Amino acid sequence: MRKINDYSKSHAEFLRAERVIPSGIYGHQGPAEGCYVPVEAFPLFSSRAKGSYLWDLDGNRLIDYMCAYGPNILGYHDPDVDAAAAKQRAISDCTTLPNTVMIDFAELLVETVATADWAFFAKNGNDVTTLAVMVARAFTHRKKIVFFKGYYHGVSPWTQKIDYAGVIEEDVMHNIYVDWNDFDALERVFAENRGEIAAVIGQPYMHGNFADNALPAKDFWQKVRRLCTAESSVLIVDDVRAGFRLDLAGSDHYFGFEADLICFCKALANGYNVSALCGKDFLKNTVSSMSYTGSYWLSAVPFAAGIACIEKMKRINCPRLLNEKGTKLKEGLIAAAESFGFDLHVTGAPSLFYLRIADDPSLRLHQEWIAECVKRGIFFTNHHNHFINASLSDEDIRETVEVAAEVFEVLRARHPKG
Amino acid sequence: MRKINDYSKSHAEFLRAERVIPSGIYGHQGPAEGCYVPVEAFPLFSSRAKGSYLWDLDGNRLIDYMCAYGPNILGYHDPDVDAAAAKQRAISDCTTLPNTVMIDFAELLVETVATADWAFFAKNGNDVTTLAVMVARAFTHRKKIVFFKGYYHGVSPWTQKIDYAGVIEEDVMHNIYVDWNDFDALERVFAENRGEIAAVIGQPYMHGNFADNALPAKDFWQKVRRLCTAESSVLIVDDVRAGFRLDLAGSDHYFGFEADLICFCKALANGYNVSALCGKDFLKNTVSSMSYTGSYWLSAVPFAAGIACIEKMKRINCPRLLNEKGTKLKEGLIAAAESFGFDLHVTGAPSLFYLRIADDPSLRLHQEWIAECVKRGIFFTNHHNHFINASLSDEDIRETVEVAAEVFEVLRARHPKG
Repeated sequence: MRKINDYSKSHAEFLRAERVIPSGIYGHQGPAEGCYVPVEAFPLFSSRAKGSYLWDLDGNRLIDYMCAYGPNILGYHDPDVDAAAAKQRAISDCTTLPNTVMIDFAELLVETVATADWAFFAKNGNDVTTLAVMVARAFTHRKKIVFFKGYYHGVSPWTQKIDYAGVIEEDVMHNIYVDWNDFDALERVFAENRGEIAAVIGQPYMHGNFADNALPAKDFWQKVRRLCTAESSVLIVDDVRAGFRLDLAGSDHYFGFEADLICFCKALANGYNVSALCGKDFLKNTVSSMSYTGSYWLSAVPFAAGIACIEKMKRINCPRLLNEKGTKLKEGLIAAAESFGFDLHVTGAPSLFYLRIADDPSLRLHQEWIAECVKRGIFFTNHHNHFINASLSDEDIRETVEVAAEVFEVLRARHPKG
Repeated sequence: MRKINDYSKSHAEFLRAERVIPSGIYGHQGPAEGCYVPVEAFPLFSSRAKGSYLWDLDGNRLIDYMCAYGPNILGYHDPDVDAAAAKQRAISDCTTLPNTVMIDFAELLVETVATADWAFFAKNGNDVTTLAVMVARAFTHRKKIVFFKGYYHGVSPWTQKIDYAGVIEEDVMHNIYVDWNDFDALERVFAENRGEIAAVIGQPYMHGNFADNALPAKDFWQKVRRLCTAESSVLIVDDVRAGFRLDLAGSDHYFGFEADLICFCKALANGYNVSALCGKDFLKNTVSSMSYTGSYWLSAVPFAAGIACIEKMKRINCPRLLNEKGTKLKEGLIAAAESFGFDLHVTGAPSLFYLRIADDPSLRLHQEWIAECVKRGIFFTNHHNHFINASLSDEDIRETVEVAAEVFEVLRARHPKG
């Protein structure tokens, strides 16, 4: 039997954090939004990270399947990306005038991403999803935006829900929500709002929280593409989470269509702080007309890191590699579950797998399984997709499946069948 | 006579940039919004930076008074900040769980900033001004926000103007604009919107573009503070630009009042990518209730840099130092102008001085003077405040004043006194 992790130091530090930081740790890296249920099962702070591992304050090593919620695609401290960043850092980073590495990075994205005729850089996914919506509104002179239910496009008021704190009705009054994969509903919405829809914004597939992830139905995106073209609406793909894990040319390319605007962040530079909006030529002048910038947006180090990251992802054929690793893990986990009579659903792309034990609709059994895996050094989390990184080894996958099986056995003993 | 800079390489690279990046260089670092008039006078890309200097692609060294539009407060590549960042980088940066350096940074801000009972970290000034407004709306259950005309609070739709591309009327319909320093107007606005004003948001003094910068009138902020308290509205200070250049305890403290929320970015970590919202205890639970985060927001390296930056700013009494350097420069520039019969206005805080030659209301004479200074290696820009950094030497100031005088002489020869 594996050792059960102790998290005393993590939890003591959390008390210190709560005194000076709202929520102690906010956002998806914190125990609340991160769905660390029960919180006792999870470490809360890391002391260091390398490859596919992180170490917590209590000295536990964990195989990290959250990958900083996406940015870690090549492995923490990838030597090639870090070397490129260090080389640029010795010259300049955040200066009054940009370094030409910005142009090199834009050229590389234009060469790599199918739908990219240009690139605009910012810092958060939220910066570029917001810019995309503003560009669509400016270009079409329309206000309405269609979302697919279950979406996440950042934290700006326009993309939050009306019942969220700080959001007012005017922020979201032109938002229209349709079910994912329901093309008929989308068509109806266009018919009812003829000439008023500025954009459709969607993730490349439904990788939302608290629900099995769902790939696009056959021809769904192709029909959406044709409808947007026919209605002169802008088609925005939010590839912040899935970007570069399915296809280096963009997840729209992976699913066989072309977005007008595509948003990248996370895996773009292996954790260095940069995001990008890429798009088609017909929208370039509109972007140029916007007043949109930030203090650090033209910093050079993340551009150098991004170039090294994309070049390495090409060299190792990263999406194929992640798919192979993810598929191996998926098959191992499902087999382990079956051995003890559990019905584990593994959905979404294998490189961004979503886990759910379907035997208990209350999800408490699922949470119990996740908790016991985490306590044994496998960092999964509840109700959010996971991420594969390129440094994850066969040995890591073997260890993960072994722990998963051990925990299924423990759970079966606690909850005997029938 | 000084050498006149050539910018052939910069301008050739700009043509390459324009092909793959909207505007070539967007935002305040680009020739359009950066007011590089005439653009031929300005370099457009930097090759490296150190202390108070940047070098452009054509090998010209410039004394940089824009300081990356604020972040450079200690000098480019400050050895103490860079060492702290490097030490943290060797351990971890962007990981699934935060490093406890986040707590240390929050504790240091709470100890340093007068109005800070807590700190919340993000990436852009815009992230924290947006959060501040959302917190005010969530706390007060009101919608209206009062701005001071000439403000800049970032690029989110709520803070842009109705005639800006991509902004719709619903984004700004609850914005109320009053003249800076006009307390009577503010009182009228409160009387006309009783119980409806969520917040007043203001920069600590009017350091807007295209106008002489204006310090607060006597007792202005104290009256605003009392009014906000009486009306249960939240008082937000946007200290993104001026923060730490006037007072390490916050610019509200410098002007003798206490904000409820204060926004920092730029000088917070000498160019490392971090921003912070700090505030009073009564708003902490509201912040905790928000859904607000981003991919890199808990990255450890900028926190380590921020700690080193604040500690060094304390050690060298940075605001006093910058004020002394800025005052010396201001006096030198005004004297140089006077020698040749020009009326140079230097307004705002000396550490964030704003320049305007008042002899020609069309501002063309001013632009001509700026252009000729830049061409001789002094990086000023038009119609935006400048920034002093701690590494600016007496020799740099002497050289700047010499160049300024030489250019005034050139201008007087071109434009003999009527």
